[in-house]
Amino acid sequence: MSRSTLALTEALIRRDSITPHDAGCQLLMIERLEALGFQVEQLRFGEVDNFWARRGNGGPVLCFAGHTDVVPTGPMEKWHTPPFEPTIRDGYLYGRGAADMKASLAAFITAIEDFVQRHPDHSGSIALLITSDEEGVAHDGTVRVVDWLEARGETIDYCIVGEPTSTSTLGDTIKNGRRGSLSGTLTVKGQQGHIAYPHLARNPVHLLAPALAELADTVWDRGNAHFPPTSWQVSNLHAGTGATNVIPGTCEVKFNFRFSTENTADTLKQGVHAILDRYGLEYDLEWALSGNPFLTEPGTLTAALGEAISEVTGLSPALSTSGGTSDGRFIKRIARELVEFGPVNATIHKLNECVAVEDIERLSAVYRRTLEKLLA
Amino acid sequence: MSRSTLALTEALIRRDSITPHDAGCQLLMIERLEALGFQVEQLRFGEVDNFWARRGNGGPVLCFAGHTDVVPTGPMEKWHTPPFEPTIRDGYLYGRGAADMKASLAAFITAIEDFVQRHPDHSGSIALLITSDEEGVAHDGTVRVVDWLEARGETIDYCIVGEPTSTSTLGDTIKNGRRGSLSGTLTVKGQQGHIAYPHLARNPVHLLAPALAELADTVWDRGNAHFPPTSWQVSNLHAGTGATNVIPGTCEVKFNFRFSTENTADTLKQGVHAILDRYGLEYDLEWALSGNPFLTEPGTLTAALGEAISEVTGLSPALSTSGGTSDGRFIKRIARELVEFGPVNATIHKLNECVAVEDIERLSAVYRRTLEKLLA
Repeated sequence: MSRSTLALTEALIRRDSITPHDAGCQLLMIERLEALGFQVEQLRFGEVDNFWARRGNGGPVLCFAGHTDVVPTGPMEKWHTPPFEPTIRDGYLYGRGAADMKASLAAFITAIEDFVQRHPDHSGSIALLITSDEEGVAHDGTVRVVDWLEARGETIDYCIVGEPTSTSTLGDTIKNGRRGSLSGTLTVKGQQGHIAYPHLARNPVHLLAPALAELADTVWDRGNAHFPPTSWQVSNLHAGTGATNVIPGTCEVKFNFRFSTENTADTLKQGVHAILDRYGLEYDLEWALSGNPFLTEPGTLTAALGEAISEVTGLSPALSTSGGTSDGRFIKRIARELVEFGPVNATIHKLNECVAVEDIERLSAVYRRTLEKLLA
Repeated sequence: MSRSTLALTEALIRRDSITPHDAGCQLLMIERLEALGFQVEQLRFGEVDNFWARRGNGGPVLCFAGHTDVVPTGPMEKWHTPPFEPTIRDGYLYGRGAADMKASLAAFITAIEDFVQRHPDHSGSIALLITSDEEGVAHDGTVRVVDWLEARGETIDYCIVGEPTSTSTLGDTIKNGRRGSLSGTLTVKGQQGHIAYPHLARNPVHLLAPALAELADTVWDRGNAHFPPTSWQVSNLHAGTGATNVIPGTCEVKFNFRFSTENTADTLKQGVHAILDRYGLEYDLEWALSGNPFLTEPGTLTAALGEAISEVTGLSPALSTSGGTSDGRFIKRIARELVEFGPVNATIHKLNECVAVEDIERLSAVYRRTLEKLLA
C-alpha cells in the first residue's frame, strides 16, 4: 500500500511557493527520494532552487520533470477557501498549484515509491529534474540545470514533464511537442506635433495602421500533421501621452508568434520586416525568442504512456502540440523523447484552482505503469 | 504720451496666473478701466475670475476679448530667466504669458487709454471680455460670460480676440475664423484570452486595424476658400494590460477632427460610424464637440483692422482659419463680426516664451487705430 498521493499534494500546497520561492517543497520531495536510494544534487542558481535526482547508473534514463513554484493568487478575498490551505469540497481539492503542478509532483514521488518497492532492481535509471522558476522569467531554472547536465555529458532517453495537459478529463491529452514562441517589440516612429497642425507632424498610428492590418491578416502557414497553424497576435499597443491635442511621436506594438515547424524564427522575422518595409515605415524592432518548436514523434515513450493512460482511465489520449510554452523546450535539447502529461488544466492560473481528488491517485498510477513499461 | 504698454505687460507677467488663477491681473486692468469711466462687472464662476467692462451705452459695440491665465512653465530650470520675472534680452521680453497673451492685454488697456484721451465722447461702446480660464477646461470662463451676456440680451458688433495670431512678423496674419473640433473616444470590444489559444479569443487590435487604416486614409473634404481640409488624427491608442501573453479584451482610440464648414459634426459622426460598422466592429463611441467652425467673412472689421495693421507695420495681413481653437468659438455666438489678432506665436506654450519689445507698443497702436476707424 502506497503512502497517499493526496496527503503529499496537500503538504506541497501548504507551502506557499510563489515564483521563484520553493518554500520547502523540494526538501519534502528530496527526503522521500533519498529514502529510496536516489542521489540528489541541489542546484541553487540566483534565487532559484533546483534539484537533479537519479536512481541507477545505466540507461535508459526516464526523467520526471516539473516545478514547485506557483503563480500568484490574485485577490485573496475572491478565493472561496484560502489558496494555501488545501481544502476538499465536492470531490475537488482546492489550492494554488493544485493542478499546476503539485498533484503531478506528488504523483511522481508516490509512483516512484510504488515502483521501487516492487522493482528495487529496475533496469536503467529514474531521474527527476525539478525547478522553482517555471512560471517566472525561467532564467535560473530548468535551462540552467540542463546546461549543467549537458556540461556533464548527461542525456535523457525519456522525459515526462508533469504539466497539466488534460483538457476535460484526465488522460484525454498528451503533449508531444510545443509550438515555438517569438516575441517582438515594434516602435514605429513619426513626428510629434499639435493636433491642429497635422501637416507639421507625422502620425505613427496612421502610418502603422495599414501594415498592422496586413500583419493581422497574414496566413503565416497552415500548420502540419503535428502543429496548428502559426499565429501572430498583438498583446499590447500604445501611442500617445494622454494629452488629447497632441499627435504622438511614436507607437509601440508588442506582439507574439506561436509558430509551427513550417516556419523558423528567421522566416517569421523576415516576413514581418518585409511588410513593415513595404509600407515605408521608420521603426525599431527588438526580437526575443522564447523557444523554438519541438516535437517528439510517436514512439516508445508515447506508446508506453498512452498504454498506461488507457489502462488507468480507459481513454486513448490525443497527441497535441497546442498551448503555451513549458520547460520542455529546454529539456528537449538533451532528451531523445519528451512528452508532457498531467491533470486537467481548466483552472490553472485562475482563482479557486483545483484538481479532482480521484485524479490524484490515478495520475500516480499512470506514472507508475509507465515506469513499469519502460524500466521494469 | 501714453503710459508704457511694456511696463503693464511686465506687471502682468509678474503675476503668476497659471490657469485657472488670475493672480491679480484683472484687478490691475480693472483699476485702469474704471479710471477711464468703464463700468466693470466682475463675474466669478467656480474658481475662475472673469470680468465684463463697458464704456458707452450705444452701438456699435467693439469688444476686446482675452485671458489673463497662462499655461504652466514646464521645468523651471530650463528657462534662461525665471518665467515670472519679466526680463528683456536682445530686444525680446521673456516671461510666461509674454506672447499668450499678456502683451495683448496690456495693449488693449493702453490703446483704449490713448483713444479715450483723444476721443472722450467716442461713438458706440468699447467693451472688454476677460477670463482666467482659456488655457484650461474653459467651462467657467468665456462661455459662462457669454451665457450671462446673452441672457441680458447683449450683442457685440465687432470683437477682437487678442490671441497671438502672427506667425513670423507682427501683422502678417489675422484669424477670421476657426475650424471646428470634434473628439471621439472609441472602445473596440474583443474577447480577452491567452495568446497561446487565439481561437478562444478575439483580438480587438486585429479587428480594428483595417478600419483604422481606412479612417486614417479617408479624405473627409478638401476644405474651401476659407478653410483647410478637415483632418482626422489619433491622439491616443491603447490596448493590453502589460502582460505579453494575454490577448487584450478591448482597444481604446482617442481621436480628433479639426473640421471645415464643408462638414458638420453630424456628417463626420456618420462617416466614422459607417466605416466602423462596415467592418462589423462591436464598439462604444463617445463624442465630444469642442466647437463648431465659425467664420467672419471679410467686411467692416477685417477692413478696419487690416488698414490699422498696414499703417503700423506696412504689411497686408492674410486672413486665416488655421490653428487650434480659441474662445472666439464661444463669443461668435453673440458677435456679428469676430477676428483674432495679436503678436507672433512662435514661442507660446514653450520654454522661454517671449515677445519682441518693439511689437508691444506697435500692437497697442494697431488696436488704437482700429478703435479710431470704428468708433472715432
